[in-house]
Amino acid sequence: MTTESPVKYELVHVCKQSGARRGILHTPHGSFETPVFMPVGTQATVKTMTPEEVYALGAGIILANTYHLWMRPGHDLVEEAGGLHQFMNWPHAILTDSGGFQVFSLSDARRISEEGVRFNSHIDGSLHELTPELAIDIQTSLGADIIMQLDECADWQEDHDYIRGSLERTLRWLERCARQHKNTANQALFGIVQGGVYEDLRKMSAEQTVAFDLPGYAIGGLSVGEPAELMYKMLEVVTPILPSDKPRYLMGVGSPDYLIEGVIRGIDMFDCVLPTRLGRNGTVMTSQGRLTVRNAAYARDFTPMDPACSCYACQNYTRAYIRHLIKANEILGLRLTTWHNLHFLINLMSEIREAISRDELLDFRDNFFSRTGYSKE
Amino acid sequence: MTTESPVKYELVHVCKQSGARRGILHTPHGSFETPVFMPVGTQATVKTMTPEEVYALGAGIILANTYHLWMRPGHDLVEEAGGLHQFMNWPHAILTDSGGFQVFSLSDARRISEEGVRFNSHIDGSLHELTPELAIDIQTSLGADIIMQLDECADWQEDHDYIRGSLERTLRWLERCARQHKNTANQALFGIVQGGVYEDLRKMSAEQTVAFDLPGYAIGGLSVGEPAELMYKMLEVVTPILPSDKPRYLMGVGSPDYLIEGVIRGIDMFDCVLPTRLGRNGTVMTSQGRLTVRNAAYARDFTPMDPACSCYACQNYTRAYIRHLIKANEILGLRLTTWHNLHFLINLMSEIREAISRDELLDFRDNFFSRTGYSKE
Repeated sequence: MTTESPVKYELVHVCKQSGARRGILHTPHGSFETPVFMPVGTQATVKTMTPEEVYALGAGIILANTYHLWMRPGHDLVEEAGGLHQFMNWPHAILTDSGGFQVFSLSDARRISEEGVRFNSHIDGSLHELTPELAIDIQTSLGADIIMQLDECADWQEDHDYIRGSLERTLRWLERCARQHKNTANQALFGIVQGGVYEDLRKMSAEQTVAFDLPGYAIGGLSVGEPAELMYKMLEVVTPILPSDKPRYLMGVGSPDYLIEGVIRGIDMFDCVLPTRLGRNGTVMTSQGRLTVRNAAYARDFTPMDPACSCYACQNYTRAYIRHLIKANEILGLRLTTWHNLHFLINLMSEIREAISRDELLDFRDNFFSRTGYSKE
Repeated sequence: MTTESPVKYELVHVCKQSGARRGILHTPHGSFETPVFMPVGTQATVKTMTPEEVYALGAGIILANTYHLWMRPGHDLVEEAGGLHQFMNWPHAILTDSGGFQVFSLSDARRISEEGVRFNSHIDGSLHELTPELAIDIQTSLGADIIMQLDECADWQEDHDYIRGSLERTLRWLERCARQHKNTANQALFGIVQGGVYEDLRKMSAEQTVAFDLPGYAIGGLSVGEPAELMYKMLEVVTPILPSDKPRYLMGVGSPDYLIEGVIRGIDMFDCVLPTRLGRNGTVMTSQGRLTVRNAAYARDFTPMDPACSCYACQNYTRAYIRHLIKANEILGLRLTTWHNLHFLINLMSEIREAISRDELLDFRDNFFSRTGYSKE
């Protein structure tokens, strides 16, 4: 790659206690501190929130899903609107995934081949094929600052042979993605390390992905049901191979314990639907652990969801009121639980960054886990 | 009534062209200008909005529904929370209805008697009876600044005999409400003029209701399907009988043409679910008339819902984006259409007040109708 990357990682501090790193990621749509949690705006909106509310919470980057926007309203329409930033009124950084993960998880009867993946739309059943080239073309239309290669996120329980074949195909897909990617001045293509839960395959995938000299690297195929210890082990194998001057993104991770353990193992970026999805189900993450505010136990509880929290929802509303809203199917209830959960994770990342700067991230982890019980979930 | 009223009407100006009046209503939770449109917060929330957003739009008073809050979460719970203002985080004025209208329109198998109305809950079918005394007790628990008597909102197509009997019972219910109402220092009880579409009955109801010397008067049983001309005629019969030093509230009216024609006939207060309900159905009121933004025609329309509008939604989002959100069942879509519609009506009332001050309300009406076509709906 001869063009200068549109995305640059600036190292700020390495925690002497944990080895975790604090930095700043510079993108064409602003800079933000890392480690960072990226709220998910699947369909060009972070569910229930306005862009201003998301930004005010401290988010400098969000993730949008290529598969969903391709299916509806269509990437050509988004391009006609001036790209995703303008379409959704979010002038800050955006990352789009390749669409592959949703093809594997949402669509019916997917058929994978060397060429790509054939599948039926989850909306109308229509037949489509996602190839590495199309994944890049769609993401070019959407115009995110960071785009992802098409990969196969294989079931972690597949055997060594399958995973090896899968990651080799993912590497060949990366080559095709890199060849198709022309808008290198404005969009940074990240490669994805796969390899299941096999140390040798993770190592092989990491080394061969890094050989592409990309502006950033992701780790996929983890947090998909495997034991936490296996995930941590894979991170310990992979991150030392990834170049220290590039950002590292652990895909689909958003539980507090995984975030902290991921940062300790050298991860800079995370995304997950957990805070928004939990919120819409009436559950919130608090300084004392999870709380299902829609439960009858809180019908006459006139305290905030989290008395220790400084978010808008906790400063202004009681558990009793929010429970009433959720029971009565009122949208404000979902807004408040979502608002709180996003605040919780974004605030957690801020505390993690401060603990890195103080060289105390391991202490922070131990205190956090003993206080919240999150490591035992 | 010997106690001084907690709600006071201050006259500011009478339009020389139309006779419409501009004023200020002072309540225990703040003052606001009239004529006013009151957004409806049925279940202790203006659907999709935060209280701060509603207030920022210019609303100084909202309406909440006694029936809904009685059924869920229960008025005792709201009282325990410190009253409705505190429960829902709305420190400004609130008006509650008596619950009667919802009993008549929502519940199954209602049986009306001199004592009150028996009905089955729309939530769980449980049997309840709403009496004038209970309507006051519930509203005392909720703690709104303005509370309403229990009345019967009879079908406008009922015959003269039925309507006469109904309004006489409504007057007897008013007497029982006034006797039950003890918190006169903090809550103002309004009487309701009924009488269907019969001039003599409207006159009789107005005269006998005014005899109670209440802090304000409402006109009910209109905008329930009768021709607009009949409604206007009834207003012309009733408002001259109502005292000029008390506020006049036309219940359940919120279409732009009815608001303007109501003000011209001396009305100060209005409420309606129209802006919020229309918005949730993907339709918005604009300076050019109604627009159903979820229609396919707007899929690639990158202009605002109303190019002439200064609201948050129109300043930041296109029809194409809002249509996408609504088609994709995204809550932000409903927030934006609701936001716009509330802005539209609140802004309309502000323009009406200015037209009153300029003594040009009839000109304003003619210009507005020819521009928007709203009078022809």
